[in-house]
Amino acid sequence: MAQQERAIRTRQVLLLAAASVFDEVGYDAASISEILSRSKMTKGALYFHFASKEALALGVIDAQTADLELPETGSKLQDLVCLTQSIARRLQTDVLLRAGVRLTVEERTLNLLGASQASPYAKWIEICGGLLTESKANGELLGHVQPAAVAELVVASFTGIQLVSQVYSRREDLAERLSAFWRYLLPGIAVPGVLPHLTTDPPAAG
Amino acid sequence: MAQQERAIRTRQVLLLAAASVFDEVGYDAASISEILSRSKMTKGALYFHFASKEALALGVIDAQTADLELPETGSKLQDLVCLTQSIARRLQTDVLLRAGVRLTVEERTLNLLGASQASPYAKWIEICGGLLTESKANGELLGHVQPAAVAELVVASFTGIQLVSQVYSRREDLAERLSAFWRYLLPGIAVPGVLPHLTTDPPAAG
Repeated sequence: MAQQERAIRTRQVLLLAAASVFDEVGYDAASISEILSRSKMTKGALYFHFASKEALALGVIDAQTADLELPETGSKLQDLVCLTQSIARRLQTDVLLRAGVRLTVEERTLNLLGASQASPYAKWIEICGGLLTESKANGELLGHVQPAAVAELVVASFTGIQLVSQVYSRREDLAERLSAFWRYLLPGIAVPGVLPHLTTDPPAAG
Repeated sequence: MAQQERAIRTRQVLLLAAASVFDEVGYDAASISEILSRSKMTKGALYFHFASKEALALGVIDAQTADLELPETGSKLQDLVCLTQSIARRLQTDVLLRAGVRLTVEERTLNLLGASQASPYAKWIEICGGLLTESKANGELLGHVQPAAVAELVVASFTGIQLVSQVYSRREDLAERLSAFWRYLLPGIAVPGVLPHLTTDPPAAG
């Protein structure tokens, strides 16, 4: 394995270990020594990649949107709905994503992250806004719909919906809650002719 | 002042002191001694009313929906929109409400609260669901709309919207974000004839 490749893998192992600890106990109670122990890496390796617990938290938050594959269904609006459903499913299994969302939601962490605090939401808003802008250009959205405002709304609502779903069912009912969100929201943003062609259900397990 | 009245006042002073500390530093970092010092009450008084920090947090969470006055505009759907806007405004000034929402959002606290963890959301969902059920009975909602599902959606979305607004503007843009949420959602739930009569703007400052 080339040296650079090994470094990337080491960084990823450290991020995953940090994510599993942040996901379980939150930022405050997470300890570097526990992260180190789960990663089975040396302290030197950890501090080479991440100068502090804060840097690890930032890395976990940034990883949320890394390597994101967008759906391609032929409709950008359907792509957006599918994207939210695929993130909902990943929240069940992907500890890196789940920890990133937990850190993003907790005020304590957002305060710590300081100037960069808005960035995790901003990245998601940019992705959703891009899909909505294309959707509008393709004639799928009603004339008065502002893609940027809807993108902010979708990201904020998703954040709250996954939070409530977590409290009630450890996110097991998240797909159904998201589906309801889209069923009630779509008539206010999509042109009537597009509505019958959209599905709000989660994609079949694959 | 009668003894019972004094006890109620003491309890309220303690709740407010606890709320101001939870609001600033969150549950974990809040100390009983700091709460005591802000309340200017004795340790005996505090432990008479609240057996533990957990009991204080529960008291703050429960206080969110206490003494809630519902708007009466003549339209139950308009009442619901106004309720969310009035809560948005109170989040700027009412430390008890703000601390309750912070505690409700943070996983650490929700885990601590154990069996009662779902209750803060449940109470809000019940209030919104009641308004929507009446709204439907009054013919304001589309036939397929399920008041309970919309109530869950509104509470969850509100939770996320206030969170994102807090990150971006310390909640200064919350009224505008809520207004956008309702503008895009209402066409999916209200009958067309009702829409022109609804306003999504925050009530004028009073």
